[in-house]
Amino acid sequence: MRRPHVTILGGGSWGTAVASIAARNAPTTIWARDEATVEDINTRHINSRYLGDLPINPALRATTDLAQAVAQADVLVLGVPSQACRAVLGEAADHLRPWVPVVSLVKGLEQGSQLRMTEVVSEVLPGHPVGVLNGPNIAREIVQGYAAAATLAMPDQQLAESLQGILRSTMFRVYTSTDVVGVEVAGALKNIFAIATGFGDGLEAGDNTRAMVITRSLRELTRLGVAMGGHEQTFSGLAGMGDLIATCTSPHSRNRRVGIMLAQGKNLDEIAAELKQVAEGVKSSSVVVELAREHGVEMRIAREVDAVINHGQAVVKAYRGLLREAPEHEFHGESW
Amino acid sequence: MRRPHVTILGGGSWGTAVASIAARNAPTTIWARDEATVEDINTRHINSRYLGDLPINPALRATTDLAQAVAQADVLVLGVPSQACRAVLGEAADHLRPWVPVVSLVKGLEQGSQLRMTEVVSEVLPGHPVGVLNGPNIAREIVQGYAAAATLAMPDQQLAESLQGILRSTMFRVYTSTDVVGVEVAGALKNIFAIATGFGDGLEAGDNTRAMVITRSLRELTRLGVAMGGHEQTFSGLAGMGDLIATCTSPHSRNRRVGIMLAQGKNLDEIAAELKQVAEGVKSSSVVVELAREHGVEMRIAREVDAVINHGQAVVKAYRGLLREAPEHEFHGESW
Repeated sequence: MRRPHVTILGGGSWGTAVASIAARNAPTTIWARDEATVEDINTRHINSRYLGDLPINPALRATTDLAQAVAQADVLVLGVPSQACRAVLGEAADHLRPWVPVVSLVKGLEQGSQLRMTEVVSEVLPGHPVGVLNGPNIAREIVQGYAAAATLAMPDQQLAESLQGILRSTMFRVYTSTDVVGVEVAGALKNIFAIATGFGDGLEAGDNTRAMVITRSLRELTRLGVAMGGHEQTFSGLAGMGDLIATCTSPHSRNRRVGIMLAQGKNLDEIAAELKQVAEGVKSSSVVVELAREHGVEMRIAREVDAVINHGQAVVKAYRGLLREAPEHEFHGESW
Repeated sequence: MRRPHVTILGGGSWGTAVASIAARNAPTTIWARDEATVEDINTRHINSRYLGDLPINPALRATTDLAQAVAQADVLVLGVPSQACRAVLGEAADHLRPWVPVVSLVKGLEQGSQLRMTEVVSEVLPGHPVGVLNGPNIAREIVQGYAAAATLAMPDQQLAESLQGILRSTMFRVYTSTDVVGVEVAGALKNIFAIATGFGDGLEAGDNTRAMVITRSLRELTRLGVAMGGHEQTFSGLAGMGDLIATCTSPHSRNRRVGIMLAQGKNLDEIAAELKQVAEGVKSSSVVVELAREHGVEMRIAREVDAVINHGQAVVKAYRGLLREAPEHEFHGESW
């Protein structure tokens, strides 16, 4: 078998990080809509828009030509923002060869349909095996060559093991799993809790509070994730707890920064202008609350985040409301 | 019923923090061996040895007279270092009134016997109901009045609810649980993993690695904890995951600092001199590895910490050894 060609759709920080790793193992092309980003990657081997002046793998090629990038793909990696996935995959559909596996890096749910991204892939590209890669993966650290790990979930474990060899490096450990739903739901839900953690950090609530909010957040996330069909242990793993901890503690986490800035009284327009990048949690908070309602799962933390983002609730009121509630039995009680 | 009198044994930072909370709800006495600490608490309302100049509750009384402090106790709280518990409880035994409940704050196992502290209590003070309080509770933040939460585990839930009312404040949320073994084992085991996280931080391995190590550490901790009789969900709760996150991420965590200093090449004597306080993880690492062996549980991270602390292994070799191992299936694989 000749070496597979890897094509990554999307020139964001996480797509670029994964592309940099793949380019060590296989010829790799990244597609981006933005011409300046493509020029950056091809000639200066940086992605200044999303990763400053960090050097990225010079073997990585970039193009703005979606048809060509997709046509040569033996593995397609999806790294565009969640709300753009359906449109980009629609453009790609006519050019993708049969059977080519698709790996999603996207952490969000489609607004309106509430679909996970691998479900969107299966609708737009029926017949292609599809999986998801997720873990505690702050992109800039991966590009810098720091050690990290992630979970690659696919129904077909043999295919997962083949792709594991392409998407890993000595410093980037890729575990395998068959729980696509769990790994994907964890990634889609965690951002709303990173915003909640950011609230506490913005209010300077301390390390104990942060650990408490992360712990009780994982409980909420797990309850909804299991109701949606994920395996409980996945949420204790790298894609669940691991990604949640990284997103809730790293100074580089966008969603946590959104929470901090909201706590400081900034509005969403000011925050979007300052971050220059979509924070998925802002988009997904209303979807998460809808899903919780449909599945009959109580999610007090998620509701407070939604109230702040979509219903004008003040952060300090959301936070005090949570504290005021008296705790009961840790696992059998009704309190958050 | 008249208001119960609370006596805390031990003038360390965590005992002082809990005593400060209890003193809001009930007359509270703290016993400490160190006369300067007792003087500090009674006259200046600080504990300069462990908590700098942070003001503590002025209603709190301190004494060096163990017999008197124990004799007036309606609730006895145990806050001395793990290796001193048996001796201090032995001194207390003759003075404690019957039926008085004992709550352990101690996070460690007895060397030699490998007993949990509530087991030591039951041996030395048979007939007394005994429980354990544990959570993400960096002591100085609690004294400063920041919000936090913990789990109080006792077999008798009604008694736990009474004590909950004494040990909580509006900012310190106390949940209840019946899983004494799980809550206690989590507290005893977490410190060794805080040292492991400190290794990564000392080597500047980044936020992704820290999240990975915490996640895989909780998996090890849970496996041993369940083998020792704890309930799996306890390890996902405040005493398990919550305390682990706080201990592994807070700059105030002693055990994490031990790991950082070891990674910087300092030896244990230098570290003990610098910290001025016992880091429980140093004492418990060999016990944890013994327990893992006896219960047939594979604990790669704990073994590396033990190798560094007790067998002269270099931190950087321990860390590289973990990275070199190829990952497999996340939950069914043999790799760490």
